[in-house]
Amino acid sequence: MNAERYHRQIILKGFGPENQVKLKRAKVLVIGAGGLGVPVLSYLNAMGVGTLGIVDNDVVSESNLHRQVLYTEDRIGQSKVHAAKEKLRAQNSETEIQDYKTYLDVSNALEIIKDYDLVVDASDNFPTRYLLNDACVLLKKPLVYGALHGFEGQVSVFNYQNGPTYRCLFPNMPKADEVPDCNQHGVLGILPGIIGNFQALEAIKVLTNMGTVLSGTLLLYDGLSQRVQRMNFTLNPENLKLDRLSNNYHFECEAPIKSIETIEVQNLLKDRAIELIDVRTVTEFNANHLKGAKHIPLDALEQRVNEIDMDAPVYIICQSGIRSQKAVRLLQRLFPDKEFINVAGGMTV
Amino acid sequence: MNAERYHRQIILKGFGPENQVKLKRAKVLVIGAGGLGVPVLSYLNAMGVGTLGIVDNDVVSESNLHRQVLYTEDRIGQSKVHAAKEKLRAQNSETEIQDYKTYLDVSNALEIIKDYDLVVDASDNFPTRYLLNDACVLLKKPLVYGALHGFEGQVSVFNYQNGPTYRCLFPNMPKADEVPDCNQHGVLGILPGIIGNFQALEAIKVLTNMGTVLSGTLLLYDGLSQRVQRMNFTLNPENLKLDRLSNNYHFECEAPIKSIETIEVQNLLKDRAIELIDVRTVTEFNANHLKGAKHIPLDALEQRVNEIDMDAPVYIICQSGIRSQKAVRLLQRLFPDKEFINVAGGMTV
Repeated sequence: MNAERYHRQIILKGFGPENQVKLKRAKVLVIGAGGLGVPVLSYLNAMGVGTLGIVDNDVVSESNLHRQVLYTEDRIGQSKVHAAKEKLRAQNSETEIQDYKTYLDVSNALEIIKDYDLVVDASDNFPTRYLLNDACVLLKKPLVYGALHGFEGQVSVFNYQNGPTYRCLFPNMPKADEVPDCNQHGVLGILPGIIGNFQALEAIKVLTNMGTVLSGTLLLYDGLSQRVQRMNFTLNPENLKLDRLSNNYHFECEAPIKSIETIEVQNLLKDRAIELIDVRTVTEFNANHLKGAKHIPLDALEQRVNEIDMDAPVYIICQSGIRSQKAVRLLQRLFPDKEFINVAGGMTV
Repeated sequence: MNAERYHRQIILKGFGPENQVKLKRAKVLVIGAGGLGVPVLSYLNAMGVGTLGIVDNDVVSESNLHRQVLYTEDRIGQSKVHAAKEKLRAQNSETEIQDYKTYLDVSNALEIIKDYDLVVDASDNFPTRYLLNDACVLLKKPLVYGALHGFEGQVSVFNYQNGPTYRCLFPNMPKADEVPDCNQHGVLGILPGIIGNFQALEAIKVLTNMGTVLSGTLLLYDGLSQRVQRMNFTLNPENLKLDRLSNNYHFECEAPIKSIETIEVQNLLKDRAIELIDVRTVTEFNANHLKGAKHIPLDALEQRVNEIDMDAPVYIICQSGIRSQKAVRLLQRLFPDKEFINVAGGMTV
């Protein structure tokens, strides 16, 4: 270990060389190399965590750049784990970096996580959070959690020294249509920077035993007011009684949704009278849409449902196929006898 | 302006395209491209601030890398403003970046600051803070302040819509020996990341008029507990009555200290009996020291002053010549009739 590199940290009263050695020996797995993962990885790498694992299956896109400051324009289209590994190595060649270009799923979670000391949840979806929680409970790994919503974010540490778990805070997976969706709500570039840095600090505290770890405490941060609230929660011992992962971590079971591909709906639009509802925002719709699509944003759908021609076959489209699924669920509750068809892939295909 | 790049930010409820345009038109000057400046610059650049100015006279050193995550190992020895400009441009080629490879001082402050809409204080010393405050009062520019001490940090916004200034919070420059010194106290790599991100967010809030700006409020953040305190303070109208900068912003006037260079003290050590006291920490002293130096850390100096041979000429050395000045001040108060000599430049020369 290069002492000069970490000199300013080693001389910090309350840190010292022994904690620097703990970081050097530590192995931290970061799930997601996006808005939260970038600051977590950047600072853990810089501060001297010896081994970092990165799990992500995405490629860098232009709309990532306003918040994922590790990536440069020339990396657009490249896999995030490879781009991240290269950038982190240039910053600190002493770090051992293991990249996993994959989604975390039931088939690989235990195998990937088992060799690490600590896991950071920098993902952006509920199925991954529940999967990660259960895998960390089974493998007895502390889990540093972070999440964003609008100008707010939250941070906690689960499964730390027999402390409470994610399921002690949020027992059940929400339904798909209860979940806010980042593509719809957007994100202020700096917010994941702040929450990701909080996560990096909690990871350092867990690894070094410094300070008070946010175990049993959910920290709620509001960027617009720079105010922080704390919510305490306790362990439900039932949540530790796992003997294996669940079979799946999809959103709660609902009737399957009939889907077609975007190319098919384009052909249908040419050939015959169908009703295609685009449920994206005004900005998205104005930027581009399929000719013949009718625009009703998802959050206005229930109020404006009378604008839909129910005599025609009704297809629903959005940007990536997530909001359109929610729209289909909503419409099916309102009109149980009518069939609504989701355009899988949406406008990004 | 590239709308796709900022799409996820533009669709954020409460942000919208009008705020993106405000950022594009904004000119922000960042004083310091170190621990605080790096996250401020990275996120303001990514989020779409149109023009960024960077003032710094340092070069990248290895011991910067544990907290200044913009810099890569191959930039060690290069000027920070040039390295920062190149890295920021690769991340967002749309930003206009102006680099000022200089210290901010009385001769250049007004000229550099006058063209900007907002100034971010990412410096690390009191003289710069008072100079920046006075220049921003004279030019009526809001000033986003951040500072670090150990595991704690503080953030505020001065001079915002006729709000209070830095001098309303801290009326007078402290004496040199009252000031904690980063080289001595060290810094946890992630801490400037958190405080710098808070500063970036406050800058965005000032530029867009979103949320509640930290004007008249000092936010005190403690990393070990993740707790935040707020301290309110009000305007003292006297602090707005400036008509020009002061003549100098050095630490409060004290008797000059006699100094010699490190090379000279090395020669003296060979030639004759002198008493050389090394006031650095144990870690620093063990890493390297001049042969013949006696080790008494600064914080133990008063208690162990009897270990100094007062019959010999007494020289004081530290890492960079700052702590040794404090030691000289301290010894001169205790022994007003004896002369103590500072080794300027210290061990880093």
